Amino acid sequence: MEINKPEVLAEVTQAFWRYEQALDRNDVAVLNELFWDSPHTLRYGITENLYGYPMIAAFRSSRPTPGHARQLKNTVITTFGQDYATANTEFHRPGSNKIGRMSHTWLRTDAGWRIVAAHVSHMEFQQ
Amino acid sequence: MEINKPEVLAEVTQAFWRYEQALDRNDVAVLNELFWDSPHTLRYGITENLYGYPMIAAFRSSRPTPGHARQLKNTVITTFGQDYATANTEFHRPGSNKIGRMSHTWLRTDAGWRIVAAHVSHMEFQQ
Repeated sequence: MEINKPEVLAEVTQAFWRYEQALDRNDVAVLNELFWDSPHTLRYGITENLYGYPMIAAFRSSRPTPGHARQLKNTVITTFGQDYATANTEFHRPGSNKIGRMSHTWLRTDAGWRIVAAHVSHMEFQQ
Repeated sequence: MEINKPEVLAEVTQAFWRYEQALDRNDVAVLNELFWDSPHTLRYGITENLYGYPMIAAFRSSRPTPGHARQLKNTVITTFGQDYATANTEFHRPGSNKIGRMSHTWLRTDAGWRIVAAHVSHMEFQQ
């Protein structure tokens, strides 16, 4: 299995940044488009655990715009063969000292690259 | 692409529980075995962000035993074709009111199923 085949990596990188830009402007249509429309899809958010595409889409519709674009750091996108990828990044928002982390597992579907599982959290400081 | 092919799901479920049991007894050898030995592997823990297999293995060696087995809830394992899977679960430790979440992306390698990316966090309570 080829890791980070250049054309596959380019596709996933493009999908990843499309998602990030949609987050910045709270573009619910694009956010929903890029999640896999399946009961198997899940998303652990900072304050919620969402199971299945309908629950994720309902959450998006009710969510206020975050207001500030976030900055990414240490973004790592890795592709496995033609059809699978992971994307992981740290993020922070201006004015906050919190270190966020976002993890995606991406799958190539007939409709294009889709997120099948996501996890977003803040790192806790060691006690 | 077949989702949750029974024999693939059985394999990944077995690998997932092997990992969980190794966590419970802090079996560093098994924990290390089940992470992909690659610079691409990463693990976001509750209080740390670890990049590459060597950093993950060094962290394991320095970590104290958690002491209590944790209980899992809403565990979802999904397989994609023959070689790719996600495993996600909520967890809590007796005596704690925290809701943990653990996400794994698994890959079939020549050596067996391996975790290529992991993310562990506590859900925050809505302010």
